Amino acid sequence: MHGLHFSLAETLRQRRRRLAAFIDGPIALWAGQPPSRNFPANTFPFRASSHFLYFTGLPLAQGVILLQQGRLTLFLDDASPEEVLWHGPSPGRDDIAVQIGADAAYPLADLAPRVQGAATIAACNPAVLAQQEQILGRPVPTSTQATDPDRQLAAAMVQVRLCHDEDAIAQIREAAAVSVAAHEAGMVATPWATSAAEVRAAMERIILAHNMDCAYASIVTPHHGEVLHNQQYHQRLQPGHLLLADVGAEAPSRLASDITLTWPVSGHFSPTQRAIYDIVLAAHDACIAQAGPEVEYRDLHLLACRVLAEGLVDLGLLRGDPESLVEQDAHALFFPPRCRPSARPRRPRHGRPRRSGRLCPRPAAEPALWPGLSAPDRPLQAGMAVTIEPGFYQVPGILNDPARRQTYRQCVNWDYLTHFNDVRGIRIEDDVLITTEGCQVLTAALPTQAEAVAAMVSS
Amino acid sequence: MHGLHFSLAETLRQRRRRLAAFIDGPIALWAGQPPSRNFPANTFPFRASSHFLYFTGLPLAQGVILLQQGRLTLFLDDASPEEVLWHGPSPGRDDIAVQIGADAAYPLADLAPRVQGAATIAACNPAVLAQQEQILGRPVPTSTQATDPDRQLAAAMVQVRLCHDEDAIAQIREAAAVSVAAHEAGMVATPWATSAAEVRAAMERIILAHNMDCAYASIVTPHHGEVLHNQQYHQRLQPGHLLLADVGAEAPSRLASDITLTWPVSGHFSPTQRAIYDIVLAAHDACIAQAGPEVEYRDLHLLACRVLAEGLVDLGLLRGDPESLVEQDAHALFFPPRCRPSARPRRPRHGRPRRSGRLCPRPAAEPALWPGLSAPDRPLQAGMAVTIEPGFYQVPGILNDPARRQTYRQCVNWDYLTHFNDVRGIRIEDDVLITTEGCQVLTAALPTQAEAVAAMVSS
Repeated sequence: MHGLHFSLAETLRQRRRRLAAFIDGPIALWAGQPPSRNFPANTFPFRASSHFLYFTGLPLAQGVILLQQGRLTLFLDDASPEEVLWHGPSPGRDDIAVQIGADAAYPLADLAPRVQGAATIAACNPAVLAQQEQILGRPVPTSTQATDPDRQLAAAMVQVRLCHDEDAIAQIREAAAVSVAAHEAGMVATPWATSAAEVRAAMERIILAHNMDCAYASIVTPHHGEVLHNQQYHQRLQPGHLLLADVGAEAPSRLASDITLTWPVSGHFSPTQRAIYDIVLAAHDACIAQAGPEVEYRDLHLLACRVLAEGLVDLGLLRGDPESLVEQDAHALFFPPRCRPSARPRRPRHGRPRRSGRLCPRPAAEPALWPGLSAPDRPLQAGMAVTIEPGFYQVPGILNDPARRQTYRQCVNWDYLTHFNDVRGIRIEDDVLITTEGCQVLTAALPTQAEAVAAMVSS
Repeated sequence: MHGLHFSLAETLRQRRRRLAAFIDGPIALWAGQPPSRNFPANTFPFRASSHFLYFTGLPLAQGVILLQQGRLTLFLDDASPEEVLWHGPSPGRDDIAVQIGADAAYPLADLAPRVQGAATIAACNPAVLAQQEQILGRPVPTSTQATDPDRQLAAAMVQVRLCHDEDAIAQIREAAAVSVAAHEAGMVATPWATSAAEVRAAMERIILAHNMDCAYASIVTPHHGEVLHNQQYHQRLQPGHLLLADVGAEAPSRLASDITLTWPVSGHFSPTQRAIYDIVLAAHDACIAQAGPEVEYRDLHLLACRVLAEGLVDLGLLRGDPESLVEQDAHALFFPPRCRPSARPRRPRHGRPRRSGRLCPRPAAEPALWPGLSAPDRPLQAGMAVTIEPGFYQVPGILNDPARRQTYRQCVNWDYLTHFNDVRGIRIEDDVLITTEGCQVLTAALPTQAEAVAAMVSS
């Protein structure tokens, strides 16, 4: 997982020191184990806890680490003969300890007496959580109910992981490059594909071929981009459809990317599709131009809202002054609060560096429109990786609600909106690294969103 | 998921009747829910319980069914507005009840009072298992500790699911055809691929493009086919390597296939590879010629052992009389007891129709050589789908064990074996349906293993 320029042990040592600056007492972190799929021996792929990986760099299933004042103790059993038969030989505990710069290493049988009193972060696998509680001899509530010192640990992890080190940034760049290649493959496959499944398959092939995994269930949906986490792939492609593809690669380090492109199945936008696409792209570009250290993430989101509102007013879909429309939440009929600071876990115990916290700059109003989409706010800092992901969505449950129709009867040209039935969902999402000067799109060496879709689209 | 010729409701009604012939009392089965991957909202794909699917045909996450004397009651909540926003609209409980021929349907709030006293099968997701125990108001031990009536239910499910109905056979055929296409794509990709990951990606693309899933973690391994469940894909391809690919598609019904091919990376077998490949293929073909109703599965395995032993004697790797070598377990240095009756769950509560029970015709001797590989025996019956999967594996932990070297010092030409270092693992695995006349390879319309590899191999 590591390039030529990084020493894993040194990177991990620096990470431990940063954590030690926030917290004195002992900390125990569990790697976890893969959950069963349909019977015990047939498991899903192992995905180690992000917090564990942050301090070990290696997905050591069943492993536990103890951190205290910069010191790392590894607890891991060597592979049994049966495990070697089934999964092949693997390095022993002592070799791994050297590789990750551990100060000591013990078998799991020695774990319980050595981690008493340690703070921890609840595993999301219930079987692993039960192990944590048994070993620590106490309940380990999930984050919302966590008590000191677990709560202090969760807060410290947020601080430590908020800004990425060079090693992590290199991993995110690799993941982003593979994600972009996957999207290019999806566009190339579209003219020959008959179903969403075929486009998804062409995209995920690229990710697997790079020996990476999908960071989340891919969204590849023709004509139903308004379903935010659409995980159906049976839909047939039709020439008039827009295809929304939200597909992200996760590197072996489990640092990931999260990229969405929306393109016309036929290779030609309709005039209505082109008009909305250009508005979303303008919002995307405006946010990237504005992003930088000390900028409030909520202000970026509000910028996207204003650019969208201006565009929709110019188009004649919204009526009135764009600022005033945003104040009334009229833009939020079409755009949820989905900009996300990906460096910060929303729920620290389970978070991963990307695709985690969600910001809701208008917490009073928007959660009602877009359930499940609210989160706190944060100023950007150099080293944070965030997604910029403006969109336009026609969600029937929102737009057909009589109360909302009434509230926004003057703000929206509802008759004209019926001409935009071929634009159900557009999202343009890029991964951005905040730098001291401003920001850098993490796929900067690759075609921009606009260039990529323009190259594919012939009208 | 259903072809033109099957009525889902009628198929399910017949399955319920078959179950009712074994068991009178109430039975509650949970569909389950997807486990979290790295944080609660990022889950693995939903894979409903096979037992639930067998009686509903639909993967109804969070759903529960009550079966009693052929009567089906469905418990399911309609999607909330939030679920519709994130995952799109879905049919309501009453529509689903009609589709699956349920006799009654209620929201989950009505579940607890209606399933008291029901037998059940423990879910493998610990969170779902906790729900079962809470709703039923009693412990639900996993199968080895199960008590009546759960144990009787598990035994009945084995009986009911042992032989497939027409609908299930059609699904297995579809999955098998896609798996074969995936293997063909893997062979086509090999000359251009540089890593196992690229071959795996080409194969899984086919499965995803058909809107199916992988039934298990694919094994695509150059030069290390002896690692039985190798799930590393970083290995580089070298011209002298044999590539072993064990990749199976699972249809939306979750009926699956399980196929292994082994081919030379260069397109040319070495003489040693060709010699061993032909022996394994002879064992494979002999088992298929012999398989049929009333044949003991252990006898098929012993047939494979004898054919392998004969071939290895002819080749000069084993010394002595093949029958006597098999009696001494000398063949088992290279061939684990892996033939499996796939129609029968090994652990009934979690089993699925394919890739489940494993047979060990020589339970006294072989488990010691091949830990984890032992299971009971069963005569074949028309309607069962089984795998035929002879192989040849050079496992260092087995072959380098001084005690075994001593035991088998006369049986094996150990010096000559060193010439076969380029044959670490070969497996040839097909899926076979037992018919009243004998058996049918489930991929019969497609090239046979021998033809497929022969078409790819030029020497």
